[in-house]
Formats: sequence, C-alpha cells, structure tokens
Amino acid sequence: MKDLLTLREEVRPGDCQVVRQIVESTGFFSPAEVDVAVELVEEHLSRGPEYGYLFVFAESDGEVAGYTCYGPIACTEGSFDLYWIVVRPEFQGKGVGRYLLGETERRINEGGGRRLYVETSGRAQYAPTRSFYERCGYRREATLEEFYGPGDDKVVYVKVACTV
Amino acid sequence: MKDLLTLREEVRPGDCQVVRQIVESTGFFSPAEVDVAVELVEEHLSRGPEYGYLFVFAESDGEVAGYTCYGPIACTEGSFDLYWIVVRPEFQGKGVGRYLLGETERRINEGGGRRLYVETSGRAQYAPTRSFYERCGYRREATLEEFYGPGDDKVVYVKVACTV
Repeated sequence: MKDLLTLREEVRPGDCQVVRQIVESTGFFSPAEVDVAVELVEEHLSRGPEYGYLFVFAESDGEVAGYTCYGPIACTEGSFDLYWIVVRPEFQGKGVGRYLLGETERRINEGGGRRLYVETSGRAQYAPTRSFYERCGYRREATLEEFYGPGDDKVVYVKVACTV
Repeated sequence: MKDLLTLREEVRPGDCQVVRQIVESTGFFSPAEVDVAVELVEEHLSRGPEYGYLFVFAESDGEVAGYTCYGPIACTEGSFDLYWIVVRPEFQGKGVGRYLLGETERRINEGGGRRLYVETSGRAQYAPTRSFYERCGYRREATLEEFYGPGDDKVVYVKVACTV
C-alpha cells in the first residue's frame, strides 16, 4: 500500500475542507473535535509552521488517504505531541496509519526530537486506537481519571527516541 | 493580606508588560517561558475570552501582586488547566498564591467546571511549587518521565470538584 502513497508536508488552503471531510468520514469524532482538527490547519496557514502545527499528508492518486498533525511542545527539549492521526475509512486496515506514524516519527527524529506523546481516551470505543499505538511501540505512561468527562479517562502514551 | 487585594478579570493591553515583568521578577522562568506567559495575554486581547485563556489579577494599591491564567480544556466536559500562577517576590509568603488559586477554583466551579489540572516540573527547584499544590488540596495524578528534558519530569496534579 505504502508504495502507492505520496507524502506531502506543505499545507494548502484546500486542506481545511479536506481535513474536515476526512475527520468526519471516520464517524469517530464529535463536531467539536472536528472543529479543532480544522482549526489546526487554519493556524498553520495563517501563522506558519513556526507556530507549531506540522502535517504529513498521505495521498493516493491525488486524494488524501490520511494525515497526521504534530508539533513540538513549548518549553520542552525535544518533546512532541501527536495531535491527530486520521485515515479515511476506505484506506483503513492497509497499514496507512502505521506508515504515516512512522514517517512522522522519522521527521521528528531528524529534527532532534526525543519523545512523541499521544493522548487518547480510555473508553471502550478507543480500544482499537490504544492497541494501534501499542503495536507501534508506544508505552502507556499515565492515566488521568475522567479527564474528558464522567467515565472517560485520558490515556497518555509515549515513544522515546522514536525510531521508525 | 487578602483584605488588601482587589481582584480583576478584565485584561488590559498594559497587562502584556505587567505579566512579563512579574514573571521575570520571580527569577524562576526561562526566557521562552516568559514569552509563553505574555503570548497568552496577547491571545486573550486579540481573540477574546472565548479563545480559552482567562485571568485573575490580584492588585494591591493598583499594582498587580500576582495573577493566574487558566481555561477550559477543549473537547472535555468541565476540565480546566491552570496555565500560570505567579506572585511577585515582595508579595510571596503572604497567602496571595493560595488566595488567587482559590478564587480561580471558585470561578471554575461556578461555571460548572469539575476538575482543575496543574502541570509542573519534578525537579528539585520545583519542590516548593509541588508542596504548594499539595497544601492546596491537589492530588498528584501522573508523572511523565523526562517530559521537559533530560532529568526533568512533568508532574500532573488535579483537584476534583475544586472547592475553595
């Protein structure tokens, strides 16, 4: 699959709509979460990459199959957050997410990053998400009880010196 | 002491300079951290309170003795972050920090907030900071190893249904 994908890091104005559509297409995220995903694209476009939201898009025949959004955490030495990783339903189960995550880690490492943090929910709906990170070499480092809401913990994963 | 303090939540353009000066006066924060503190004031001024950075300033005779910066965490039900709490050196040790924190908690509670999170460093320099949060009823919920840098853990505290 990954041989058929082209990566790009440049963010284009049309990506606001692309990201909205991909994130909605998963049926996984709330409207508020969709808005946040789009806002990060807008922040990149209006403030530039220095503002801290970076992207990797994977395209197949010119169509975006999935993307990651990540960036350095202010006031840390080499710690990064993975804000979003989303793959269109029709491209899921083909290694696109793993490929995107690995390419994101590679870019972070090459820039001197040491740690990549991922936050996700402890709810049952997110069991496949947590399993995905664990298969990709992430270690569960913390659980914040009911962070997102009643019965909805935040789980923090980290990958250290993230090697592809 | 607190009888001599006046609180205000309105943010004024002059607060950019006030906040820079207070944060620098502590001798505690790096230049990058000082810049972040000022940026949050600027974000409030340019984008409004809806953008999520709220303030409580404590003033004595018109001079700002200390302040907190806090706000709701996006995509959570009632979780808040305390971004900054800073007291001018000449006002430290007089209960100003505790008063400011309690007033911040009260505002969060009145708005329906359930949880206030505080992140700080695990380094020895921050032992008084950690002790302050523990005395104020905060529970240590997570430690992220070397989050800020080599040998510099992040410690996450939380106060639930934060009552004054």
